[in-house]
Amino acid sequence: MSEVYAARRTRLRDCCNAGGSAAALVSRPANVRYLAGPAPSGAVLLLGRTEDQDLLVCGESPDDRPTQPRPDDALRVHTLPGNDGDPAVAAAGLAAEGGDSLAVEEHHLTVARHRAIASVAPRLRLTNLGCAVEQLRVVKDEEEISCLRIGAEIADQALGELLESILVGRTERHLALELERRLVDHGADGPAFPTSVATGPNAGRRAHRPTDRRVEEGDFLSVCLGATYRGYRCEIGRTFVIGTTPADWQIELYDLVFSAQRAGREALSPGAACRDVDRAARQVLDSAGYTEGLPRLTGHGVGLEIDEDPQLSPAAMGKLDACVPVTVEPGVHLPGRGGVRIDDTLVVRPEADGGPELLTITTKELLAL
Amino acid sequence: MSEVYAARRTRLRDCCNAGGSAAALVSRPANVRYLAGPAPSGAVLLLGRTEDQDLLVCGESPDDRPTQPRPDDALRVHTLPGNDGDPAVAAAGLAAEGGDSLAVEEHHLTVARHRAIASVAPRLRLTNLGCAVEQLRVVKDEEEISCLRIGAEIADQALGELLESILVGRTERHLALELERRLVDHGADGPAFPTSVATGPNAGRRAHRPTDRRVEEGDFLSVCLGATYRGYRCEIGRTFVIGTTPADWQIELYDLVFSAQRAGREALSPGAACRDVDRAARQVLDSAGYTEGLPRLTGHGVGLEIDEDPQLSPAAMGKLDACVPVTVEPGVHLPGRGGVRIDDTLVVRPEADGGPELLTITTKELLAL
Repeated sequence: MSEVYAARRTRLRDCCNAGGSAAALVSRPANVRYLAGPAPSGAVLLLGRTEDQDLLVCGESPDDRPTQPRPDDALRVHTLPGNDGDPAVAAAGLAAEGGDSLAVEEHHLTVARHRAIASVAPRLRLTNLGCAVEQLRVVKDEEEISCLRIGAEIADQALGELLESILVGRTERHLALELERRLVDHGADGPAFPTSVATGPNAGRRAHRPTDRRVEEGDFLSVCLGATYRGYRCEIGRTFVIGTTPADWQIELYDLVFSAQRAGREALSPGAACRDVDRAARQVLDSAGYTEGLPRLTGHGVGLEIDEDPQLSPAAMGKLDACVPVTVEPGVHLPGRGGVRIDDTLVVRPEADGGPELLTITTKELLAL
Repeated sequence: MSEVYAARRTRLRDCCNAGGSAAALVSRPANVRYLAGPAPSGAVLLLGRTEDQDLLVCGESPDDRPTQPRPDDALRVHTLPGNDGDPAVAAAGLAAEGGDSLAVEEHHLTVARHRAIASVAPRLRLTNLGCAVEQLRVVKDEEEISCLRIGAEIADQALGELLESILVGRTERHLALELERRLVDHGADGPAFPTSVATGPNAGRRAHRPTDRRVEEGDFLSVCLGATYRGYRCEIGRTFVIGTTPADWQIELYDLVFSAQRAGREALSPGAACRDVDRAARQVLDSAGYTEGLPRLTGHGVGLEIDEDPQLSPAAMGKLDACVPVTVEPGVHLPGRGGVRIDDTLVVRPEADGGPELLTITTKELLAL
């Protein structure tokens, strides 16, 4: 893996040189992980002018964590004496010894930390690295996609096992905890985000936090979960009906959301505008009269964080590339009655490679449980 | 509860007026919760010159979350149109209409958000609110302590049940998940922090992340968990021996850490210097020759966050007050062999009221399981 991290740092170095900065300080945890591998909490990466100047600055020595995954072995590590202080401030002090400018992540550093950096390195010109690392992270390599694929398999397994158990009478909170236990049983590092289980009138609400409501006959049950595997986070959402026969309104609503979700999936291709993918899904719901209360976005990128670029929304700029994993997750929620969400993680692939690769393969038929 | 939140805002208003700022923007989530009650994620509080100018600015309407706890009913709410945009930036725009200065939380706002605020309100003088709200949060009222007390009871129950089950052969990860399930079973909102279960050579490591290592005969087993109850987070840590008879070195090490923890607990009193409490615990370990690798702190405040002021550490400034809940949690870890941690949550109380109130009452005898 060491060459992978080194190659990523080289690409960032190219961006920085183009931007006129000699050195960069990467502090956002997912960005540090992308460029340096798994590092102790709070660690920052100081990117130098050349590969051999790169330095991981940690508050805690990686050697004190023998059971944790290790950062890139080829990278020099500087551990703060006494395991104390702010690694970002210490890194800026080191950067001041070798250069005259430092690009920092202004969207991550607080005003107070930025000021502390400026005060230990008063001669250093602080510039803005912006979202350069986030942009590098958008297109994934096959190793990253393979982690997402395994995570999706784990989530599919956990969900499949839940569907085989008795659901009526159990609370949303218990079902969510059981899903999270099953994710870990099947090898996940942990859940990718707080598992959402929503029943009856709660069903179909995005990011619903599980309550003590119990599953009842006739309910919609919507579930959204994901596994983290080697740091990579995927997402799957499904909606079911509890009992033998779904009501007509349930079948109609389900079919509608399913059509919207399929339209979104089918719009995924390299070069497609993000807003066109969103529109493909959204106009199915719009044309059925569901114009109010639609979600702000119908999908988003996934990777080391669960909500990454690109966003699939009406205001999104930019186009999709091959090897970008995204969710497609339209939903409708009817206040007081419940609703439907269907959510997959897919990887954008060219037509010649078979089109979008579906990672979350649990059936999207309307199951009556 | 509404009067409680209003009274807290009045105290903050007094601080701001003393500091020369007419209005304040509170963005750190735990601070918003303290002053406004449970609010949607990302909400900020705009504190005006008078009570009736106070405003909760949300990206999502609290009415869209009917199953979630509600913010203070007496507080006006402004929901951003389209559920989009940054509530902090919108709040600054509103503040600019009514005043000429705004105190912001520079230790929480990123440089990028601070700049966005400055650009929507260019005539507003931005000052630093600092940790004013965190300082108000240090001393708890009896309602807050009662939430911590219930959380501690829940954690005691979850731990007690685990001790009655078979442990040998189970992995750290499974034990941690089972503890978290039991916390929720007993009424917790969720775990207060990621539950730590450490066996054998991992035992006694602070904030150890559970691995797939299985519990074996003769192991030390150390567990650290906590419940969140109505937003308040407590913490308990215990160490056990697996098997019938602890080895001599295990008994000695346990007795030592127990003595250090007791010394820390006994040093808690209103007016005691935080560093003296730390020293009381630390010098027991020091004098037994454990000078290397001691923890950076031996305790910390708890409340709406798991790691609040005050810190009990050699460099800590300040003194304890009555009604401040803190942990006392010294530990020793011997590389390759394991170690011991003992961790309680207590509330500082005057001698006349019986001295420190122990919230986590699980026995601290060395149990062989």
